[in-house]
Amino acid sequence: MSAHLEFVEKNVAYAESFDKGHLPVPPAKKLLIVTCMDARIDCYKSLGLELGEAHIVRNAGGSARDAFRSILISQRLLGTREIAVFHHTNCGMQSFTAPQLRSLVKSDAQSRPDNEKEEIEKTVDGMTFYEFSDLERSVLEDVKYLKENLLVLEEAKITGWIYDTANGKVKQVV
Amino acid sequence: MSAHLEFVEKNVAYAESFDKGHLPVPPAKKLLIVTCMDARIDCYKSLGLELGEAHIVRNAGGSARDAFRSILISQRLLGTREIAVFHHTNCGMQSFTAPQLRSLVKSDAQSRPDNEKEEIEKTVDGMTFYEFSDLERSVLEDVKYLKENLLVLEEAKITGWIYDTANGKVKQVV
Repeated sequence: MSAHLEFVEKNVAYAESFDKGHLPVPPAKKLLIVTCMDARIDCYKSLGLELGEAHIVRNAGGSARDAFRSILISQRLLGTREIAVFHHTNCGMQSFTAPQLRSLVKSDAQSRPDNEKEEIEKTVDGMTFYEFSDLERSVLEDVKYLKENLLVLEEAKITGWIYDTANGKVKQVV
Repeated sequence: MSAHLEFVEKNVAYAESFDKGHLPVPPAKKLLIVTCMDARIDCYKSLGLELGEAHIVRNAGGSARDAFRSILISQRLLGTREIAVFHHTNCGMQSFTAPQLRSLVKSDAQSRPDNEKEEIEKTVDGMTFYEFSDLERSVLEDVKYLKENLLVLEEAKITGWIYDTANGKVKQVV
């Protein structure tokens, strides 16, 4: 069964008791969270956030570089002034290298017509994956990237964190 | 007060009752959700998803293009085979145009030294913001982009949705 058939059903119950239609667009806490797409992370629950309080940007690894477009829009148009970058233990981004992933994609494309193979190879060779090996260093580097980025507001408070998927705890790195 | 002081406190209570440390990395439903960073969206609740069931990618607008790196990693390394793209009513992405945002960023940089001004202008001129005016069309275009992308697995089921921030309801567009 497609997962969407199930979530449509569950959404009916959610909408029936929904009472948050009045919330304004700008996040109440002026906070933006960057975290991983990992299925084991629910930052509303793990950080005790309520609907309407924070922008939540999620991508593979919780990369601040990947999140930059969203951060710029969030700060300039919607008034956020604090960024908390979360990476997490046991992250998929620590399980591969870019050359390995590129090889995998190219190998999956072997049976394709030549023109498609070429396009796939060109695209994947041009991609940056933001994988990392050292978890704590990856957080430090992301915070450094944001602090040095001239387009990220100087007045913004920026912190870096590790979420532990084994016990649900957060730890501040910087 | 910094928002992070508050979420650290709330995380203590979360970790105390945390019992999901055993969940595997690959999402149980082989599902990836793309949705907006908007503070009024909690797709675990609105779609009845449990921890461990789906990758959640969030960015300004819920752009599938912006999510492409994450989607590739999710499909190739962590086995997801269904993508649901959500955009939503009353989205910040409908409230500006790229030229307006570029002007705003440049105008904020007026008092900076010349070399910084130049770098800021160059960066913002090179950015794509993925803003949109027609909500339904933006969903159709994102699904089309994914279906035509040679690096997105052909076997993946891809659907497009609108989430209504006024009443919590989801509606399938495609």
